[in-house]
Amino acid sequence: MTNVQATDALPVTDAEIFEGHRGGKLSVAATKPIAQARDLSIAYTPGVAKVSRAIAENAEMARHYTWADRLVVVVSDGTAVLGLGDIGASASLPVMEGKSVLFKTFGGLDAIPLVLDTTDVDEIVETLVRLRPSFGAVNLEDIAAPRCFELEDKLKEALDCPVMHDDQHGTAIVTLAALRGANLVLGRDITTERVVISGAGSAGVACAKILQEAGVADVTVLDSKGIVHTGRDDLNPVKAKLAEATNSAGLRGGLADALRGADVFLGLSGATIDEAVLAGMADDSIVFALSNPDPEVHPEVAARYAAIVATGRSDFPNQINNVLAFPGVFRGALDAGARAITERMKLAAAEAIFAVAQEDIGPDRIVPSPLDPRVAPEVAAAVAKAAVEDGVTH
Amino acid sequence: MTNVQATDALPVTDAEIFEGHRGGKLSVAATKPIAQARDLSIAYTPGVAKVSRAIAENAEMARHYTWADRLVVVVSDGTAVLGLGDIGASASLPVMEGKSVLFKTFGGLDAIPLVLDTTDVDEIVETLVRLRPSFGAVNLEDIAAPRCFELEDKLKEALDCPVMHDDQHGTAIVTLAALRGANLVLGRDITTERVVISGAGSAGVACAKILQEAGVADVTVLDSKGIVHTGRDDLNPVKAKLAEATNSAGLRGGLADALRGADVFLGLSGATIDEAVLAGMADDSIVFALSNPDPEVHPEVAARYAAIVATGRSDFPNQINNVLAFPGVFRGALDAGARAITERMKLAAAEAIFAVAQEDIGPDRIVPSPLDPRVAPEVAAAVAKAAVEDGVTH
Repeated sequence: MTNVQATDALPVTDAEIFEGHRGGKLSVAATKPIAQARDLSIAYTPGVAKVSRAIAENAEMARHYTWADRLVVVVSDGTAVLGLGDIGASASLPVMEGKSVLFKTFGGLDAIPLVLDTTDVDEIVETLVRLRPSFGAVNLEDIAAPRCFELEDKLKEALDCPVMHDDQHGTAIVTLAALRGANLVLGRDITTERVVISGAGSAGVACAKILQEAGVADVTVLDSKGIVHTGRDDLNPVKAKLAEATNSAGLRGGLADALRGADVFLGLSGATIDEAVLAGMADDSIVFALSNPDPEVHPEVAARYAAIVATGRSDFPNQINNVLAFPGVFRGALDAGARAITERMKLAAAEAIFAVAQEDIGPDRIVPSPLDPRVAPEVAAAVAKAAVEDGVTH
Repeated sequence: MTNVQATDALPVTDAEIFEGHRGGKLSVAATKPIAQARDLSIAYTPGVAKVSRAIAENAEMARHYTWADRLVVVVSDGTAVLGLGDIGASASLPVMEGKSVLFKTFGGLDAIPLVLDTTDVDEIVETLVRLRPSFGAVNLEDIAAPRCFELEDKLKEALDCPVMHDDQHGTAIVTLAALRGANLVLGRDITTERVVISGAGSAGVACAKILQEAGVADVTVLDSKGIVHTGRDDLNPVKAKLAEATNSAGLRGGLADALRGADVFLGLSGATIDEAVLAGMADDSIVFALSNPDPEVHPEVAARYAAIVATGRSDFPNQINNVLAFPGVFRGALDAGARAITERMKLAAAEAIFAVAQEDIGPDRIVPSPLDPRVAPEVAAAVAKAAVEDGVTH
């Protein structure tokens, strides 16, 4: 059984948190310091003119002599920030700065937040198209569903560089890796399990998709109204498509109906679930209660019914955290000169995380720690290889 | 007489230049490193939610708990890059990276390049308005005239933060400071001199304006067609306004006509001038040949006629370089929480540079060295004070 004791007993105080954000968390540094007139002549005028002219003559030179090709822009409109909802661009900035810090810390990539005072999909696309020469890749973050799907699709169409909405695909990659880990511990096969996903927002939709790509045949998704099925007439286009692609058993009803006999519960909704509902699951079930900061069910309660429990929290074991994926995914994509992030690249990222987990796997260690420095390089290498295999490199 | 020997005999090689730009010149760093789970809980989830919520409740908090308020975006559309002309956004990026390095080195400010794949004024304004929550100030750079004037005006109208087109005002500030220095050396009064400016682009227009604000009564400007005067019917609106405001003597003709008996020549055009034309200037004249990399006249030639010679080059004395102004100007504006950069702030910047120069002034030292670390703090303090006096602070 999962050990559900908190791994970090000391709570973080508000004073510590605000102090940790004072003045912002990012800083720009010069890679080559300017100390003498000669340095100025090289980095600025007149020397820089030679580099600019070289790029004007051969656009490819920008990849080698500017920072753009290794720069990730972390883009948000502030409409779905953490569990706080639509709090606006400015209030989302501390999150985007934090994300940029993680890109640097784990992926060795430079990243800057670009938060937008518009929620119009076409305006966001237009803005990034205009800024295209400034960056190398786009990480979309905390953008509300279903707009996030349209935005990601349009951006991928408009830009010839890696674009990924992390709330969708980062979550999906790490969830798949964790589910592979849980199944290895339990000696079971992911493809034969019944998986129930609570939440049909960005993460729920992406998780359903990647699990199916990984061979899971039986996936059922619920939104706030209940099971997503083809008989419903209140579904937006994304959910209507999801209804077609999932729930092959044609289930109807609510969470209790969906979970009866299910092997895996994947909570991505923020809703709370009753103990009685968990009791209806199959023996040795797997419960991922990923809502943050409050899981759908307390891990100690879940552990009464489930063989493996995971959350998104750092103070319990089995933390499913996107930081296991995005630094390596973008690093691998940029290292390979990829024009896009493909499904194969995401699956390769999940397998790489799972491979690192296998070195020390157990019911409390189905994924590596978010701070494990081995993960990002392995993910990057796997993603770069998949990019080459998919023929999407420059 | 000015000593015109090059101050730096060793030429910079192409290999050195390209090596100095490899991989770009900027890097993003975390101000607080993430080494433990606790750091992650503070900088990212769940801790960051408290900071985001605080900003959502009180927008002012963003000034203290994000980097935006100290972040300068260095914006270009690549239409007037150094002396290279319209080489495009991507090719302008090395220059904007270099500028960002200078902001950091001399002003202690974080700066990032945003280069734009559009030259439409309204689209550039719209883009920056959408990104407004991401930054604290805008440095416009290398944008062609006359579009740069319209762009700066519209941006200042649209944004409640410091906006400055450095090719205009940075040049104007340093030129005024240098002219004050030259006059102090010569024991003359700037307000009674006849000043001729060759070039009616961004720098020429701004220099004419700041010199008049500083009390210079007699300013004449030339464009590629000759003296700008009210009788010409080929002037764009900016030049037509300039014709009204300058050339009180009603001069017509070319450079030789304008320079006859003039006290100051200010070259900002890239055109070359004949020795014979310089010979027509008043005794003990001042020649600033600021075109880069090739001055309008070689300083050794100019020194045969002029008492004080300055260029934009680092390999001759009296280097008139914008880096003396912009780091301190933006630092002062941001320190004061200024909503704009006013004329008084620019004049204060020029006086501060001149004040530093006075400590060691001479015919070869009319301005401080661009690397003089005393300058930016003095400029910042003077600009911040002027912002408060002008009542433009938050």
